[in-house]
Amino acid sequence: MKAVRVHQYHQDPRIDDVDEPVVTGPWDVIVEIGAAGLCRTDLHVIEGQWDPIQHPSLPYILGHENAGWVREVGSAVSNVAPGDTVIMHPLVTCGLCLPCRAGQDSHCENSTFPGLNVDGGMSEFMRTNARSVVKLDASLHPADIAALADAGLTAYHAVRKAVPLLPPGSHAVVIGSGGLGHIGVQSLKALTAAEITVVDHSDAALELATSLGADHTVNSSDAGKLLDITGGGAQVVFDFVGEHGTESLGITALRNRGSYFSIGYGGAVNVDTIEIISREISVVGNLVGTYTDLVELMTLTSQGKVTLHTQVYDLEDAVQAMHDLDNGTLLGRGILVPHRTT
Amino acid sequence: MKAVRVHQYHQDPRIDDVDEPVVTGPWDVIVEIGAAGLCRTDLHVIEGQWDPIQHPSLPYILGHENAGWVREVGSAVSNVAPGDTVIMHPLVTCGLCLPCRAGQDSHCENSTFPGLNVDGGMSEFMRTNARSVVKLDASLHPADIAALADAGLTAYHAVRKAVPLLPPGSHAVVIGSGGLGHIGVQSLKALTAAEITVVDHSDAALELATSLGADHTVNSSDAGKLLDITGGGAQVVFDFVGEHGTESLGITALRNRGSYFSIGYGGAVNVDTIEIISREISVVGNLVGTYTDLVELMTLTSQGKVTLHTQVYDLEDAVQAMHDLDNGTLLGRGILVPHRTT
Amino acid sequence: MKAVRVHQYHQDPRIDDVDEPVVTGPWDVIVEIGAAGLCRTDLHVIEGQWDPIQHPSLPYILGHENAGWVREVGSAVSNVAPGDTVIMHPLVTCGLCLPCRAGQDSHCENSTFPGLNVDGGMSEFMRTNARSVVKLDASLHPADIAALADAGLTAYHAVRKAVPLLPPGSHAVVIGSGGLGHIGVQSLKALTAAEITVVDHSDAALELATSLGADHTVNSSDAGKLLDITGGGAQVVFDFVGEHGTESLGITALRNRGSYFSIGYGGAVNVDTIEIISREISVVGNLVGTYTDLVELMTLTSQGKVTLHTQVYDLEDAVQAMHDLDNGTLLGRGILVPHRTT
Amino acid sequence: MKAVRVHQYHQDPRIDDVDEPVVTGPWDVIVEIGAAGLCRTDLHVIEGQWDPIQHPSLPYILGHENAGWVREVGSAVSNVAPGDTVIMHPLVTCGLCLPCRAGQDSHCENSTFPGLNVDGGMSEFMRTNARSVVKLDASLHPADIAALADAGLTAYHAVRKAVPLLPPGSHAVVIGSGGLGHIGVQSLKALTAAEITVVDHSDAALELATSLGADHTVNSSDAGKLLDITGGGAQVVFDFVGEHGTESLGITALRNRGSYFSIGYGGAVNVDTIEIISREISVVGNLVGTYTDLVELMTLTSQGKVTLHTQVYDLEDAVQAMHDLDNGTLLGRGILVPHRTT
Repeated sequence: MKAVRVHQYHQDPRIDDVDEPVVTGPWDVIVEIGAAGLCRTDLHVIEGQWDPIQHPSLPYILGHENAGWVREVGSAVSNVAPGDTVIMHPLVTCGLCLPCRAGQDSHCENSTFPGLNVDGGMSEFMRTNARSVVKLDASLHPADIAALADAGLTAYHAVRKAVPLLPPGSHAVVIGSGGLGHIGVQSLKALTAAEITVVDHSDAALELATSLGADHTVNSSDAGKLLDITGGGAQVVFDFVGEHGTESLGITALRNRGSYFSIGYGGAVNVDTIEIISREISVVGNLVGTYTDLVELMTLTSQGKVTLHTQVYDLEDAVQAMHDLDNGTLLGRGILVPHRTT
Repeated sequence: MKAVRVHQYHQDPRIDDVDEPVVTGPWDVIVEIGAAGLCRTDLHVIEGQWDPIQHPSLPYILGHENAGWVREVGSAVSNVAPGDTVIMHPLVTCGLCLPCRAGQDSHCENSTFPGLNVDGGMSEFMRTNARSVVKLDASLHPADIAALADAGLTAYHAVRKAVPLLPPGSHAVVIGSGGLGHIGVQSLKALTAAEITVVDHSDAALELATSLGADHTVNSSDAGKLLDITGGGAQVVFDFVGEHGTESLGITALRNRGSYFSIGYGGAVNVDTIEIISREISVVGNLVGTYTDLVELMTLTSQGKVTLHTQVYDLEDAVQAMHDLDNGTLLGRGILVPHRTT
Repeated sequence: MKAVRVHQYHQDPRIDDVDEPVVTGPWDVIVEIGAAGLCRTDLHVIEGQWDPIQHPSLPYILGHENAGWVREVGSAVSNVAPGDTVIMHPLVTCGLCLPCRAGQDSHCENSTFPGLNVDGGMSEFMRTNARSVVKLDASLHPADIAALADAGLTAYHAVRKAVPLLPPGSHAVVIGSGGLGHIGVQSLKALTAAEITVVDHSDAALELATSLGADHTVNSSDAGKLLDITGGGAQVVFDFVGEHGTESLGITALRNRGSYFSIGYGGAVNVDTIEIISREISVVGNLVGTYTDLVELMTLTSQGKVTLHTQVYDLEDAVQAMHDLDNGTLLGRGILVPHRTT
Repeated sequence: MKAVRVHQYHQDPRIDDVDEPVVTGPWDVIVEIGAAGLCRTDLHVIEGQWDPIQHPSLPYILGHENAGWVREVGSAVSNVAPGDTVIMHPLVTCGLCLPCRAGQDSHCENSTFPGLNVDGGMSEFMRTNARSVVKLDASLHPADIAALADAGLTAYHAVRKAVPLLPPGSHAVVIGSGGLGHIGVQSLKALTAAEITVVDHSDAALELATSLGADHTVNSSDAGKLLDITGGGAQVVFDFVGEHGTESLGITALRNRGSYFSIGYGGAVNVDTIEIISREISVVGNLVGTYTDLVELMTLTSQGKVTLHTQVYDLEDAVQAMHDLDNGTLLGRGILVPHRTT
């Protein structure tokens, strides 16, 4: 089958012909890929940024936002059957370690992360396990929801954690209204009555945010307005960028007792301890989401409360799509679709 | 009456003769000071570190950890009466703003902070209001509990916020077992079943921690052991120092999903966003505590679950006590007692 | 001034001429009544049902849902000034007891409850205190929001407590879509993404619920459908009726781990302990709401997310309005408006 | 092997010779039973009380509190190996349904309950699965901890849920200081600083409670004292009896906003809705506990914070033990130990 593989860091991945995966254990599930999302993390992988954290063996197949149809299942799989439409949680988890038992499977101690440390879904078929698959309505098309598997899940997870901090009358600031941020805005509208202010340097992104329900938008060049708009600072700032100064912008935009939710990465948080304590503010890390988060996000999607803005490429055009993403000419979220299934 | 006043930053305060405070509003309470705690924050005040945050008018009376006996009350005061033994919450709050209404009075929008921005309790009498005073058993001596008003309250508040993160089997690391830290250890023992590891550069401080119930102690020079002792990192690190490298030590000692509680100050937190998100860790600021926190801490004290280690000075020897604190020759918590009432 | 007073239980109240209230303490606030809501609780008061709980001295003025304009304030009042439009929290609280300090002012240990144990707002003027008044936009009309002070607040409070139990994909069942229930439905839409099913015996009430965003409606005669609609039971049932069998209907409609929120009253909850434990269900009482709840509800109102359906009467027609309410001919929420201010 | 089987309700179970269980699926684990706890639920099973809820096929083996040593594991089991000492969570869960994924495995939609609906552990060997077993220190003896698997777990689970309601200064009332209650008292001491009052009709049980740390004890005949001791009612009442009037006693002993935790069963809760709402009280059901709860309880046990009071019988004397339990002559918790392994 065709697959998009990284052979060496700092080089374009290649479209290779590789063997199809097969069931090897009782919990295995083989999925025919309907669509794989393309994500800035894929670019960071190619730059080698994730190697010291995930250390995969090269070459391997990219793709950590995957959806498709079940083709074969292991002997112990009871929750899905061949033919089912599924989206895959980004992690393949064990179900036995303490984080898994507590519902915190995104911190599974025995997980693999397809597309980051084992073969992912930019290919025609992929092996995952029974604990990764969320069964969907047959009416849903993988190309419409694949990118929710990681980008959407991460944005949703952060918003979900913040709900208790965002009662009516509170302010949420969203920095970055791109692939994650526009899901964040929709999740905030669905789960809270907070007033939402979106900051971005792109006016097109701000227009999208307004159309999705943002109450206020601010161009990054005008970020000084945030304290006025929020009446003295936000209860929660969601930083979907996490570099180039959004870190300090976000922390400045908090009110006392506010929380800066760190989601995007690349930069650093640097704050004096006297500022942390005198304002009693928090910095809260966010990493993908749990399986339960993904189920909830799929519910919001099926209810029409969250929709993705996408641009579809043929799987064989993956490298072109990556260049477009890098150049800023990819509008919305890039989706790769294997030829056979289009 | 005698009072310890700051006249100029970077100079020793002076023992002045000043007028006694009087009731001027319906909620006022005049307290005869039984004891005032001496705190490293007093040294920071004298260094001018709090001026840009609190901007008091000089000269003014120091002392933000106060206890004594009610002498006079305003017309609307119904919760205490002359003769009652009281400890004073460090903030004088309004009871009308939204934080006060939500039980978050330590973020009152109209508060004063005696000893930091108005006259405090290093004197014979002090004016506070009905919302600051916690009535105590007549059997309690102000000198034994005054330092709980701020130092103890701050340590307790941080532990109280962390309770949901510290179930049986979890690990708490306490950095710094001094005036705040030793209250933190006792509060952890009272409120959780977490395993407690204390880090300090002083072996005497570590011995005190052990006697108060710490499960493990580690000299700062040996902090590399923390990951072993905690089986891969702590769920919560309480940093009662907050400078000289404890910030990065504390963050390194976290496990995935762990929280670094920032309490001491002077330094800075500096973490890459990729570390924050890939480990999903949090940095949580802590500032004094609420009135309810203080009531709970007084309950623990009256139950014998929290005790203070103190060294008593005459109020007129306040400057000597400050020098001792600065030189490291003050063991335990310094307490100033006005002459009349010893 | 004119006032609607209860002289004897089981008799119609009378429209009396009484003295206007005056400021007697530093926290007092005199409000010119713009509107007073009429509530089934007023009928229960007249029936004597609240006498053993509130034991007021007869005669006294009814009216516990009040809004208007500040006319005079005591010496210590800083949060409102004459001319301000205000809604009044149903309780006049002390700000000093432990529940008040923890933000649980609806359980104040020193409160009065105007309209239930002291003079209420079915009159031209009313005395309250600084802690009861929520300042509103001058553009808001008391007649449009007065009934939110208690009925709306109670419904909102229950929904607010239930938010953590109602993630996307969960089911909320609302029993009774009357004066409280229709605020409950709107609050659920504003604060959660739960699927909402409304049960009522009135098709008009069900139509109103649908227009406010209910996902499903069920006539009480058809309540057997609830388990199907909710896919095996609701996470939360809100019982705004609380008598005539809704208690057992509500508990039957729960799924495992579900919570029956008791709001309406008159009947009794009767469940075998083996059912409580084998299904691990809860019964959760709800009583009005806190001041903070009322502030949040006013925010939702000003954002247009919650609106009241009302029918306005002249204050002097109060008895007629009560008869209409009793007869079921009062559609929406009854509002009494003093003559002068219409 | 020997096994204690129910053949007909309302008749003593029999000691039968049956085949040993074998591994049939990839997740199966065969455990050599070291000890099986005897519980009042076993008597209720024999009385047929659980038949309409669990509907097992008779005859089947009793025993739902089991510990022992792993003897054989299925092909997919990675968390235990032959020779490991284990305690078994009472439910055999799937790891795939939504409750399992959210960490709420005690509400698994595909679980079996050995001893209640399939063969349990009153035998020499038992089949369970990888998700049921908690690995223990080899130093622990099954006979010392087996009864924690259900009775202890249930008591711990209830206390664990109540922790946020029990800050310093709060009151917990424990009704019934028997097999569950004495674990409840120890769990409360380990997890909270609440003041604990124990009610029982047996003075011996009250003495045990005092020795385990109860602050006050009250004979049931003297329960009127509860409101005095608790200063107006408890924040939480744990009812480990749940019949013969403890239900109303427990609800009466609550303060406003208090919660009655229902754990024991047999009777019924019957409360007027006006009482539920005017006091804003809750009734909270409790059913066993999660796997995570059991891990935490084992931690407390290994730390010496929770210990069981037991009386050991040979497995073949199971019927005698049941008669002793029924007659009230079994002191502490009954434990059945297969002959071979004593």
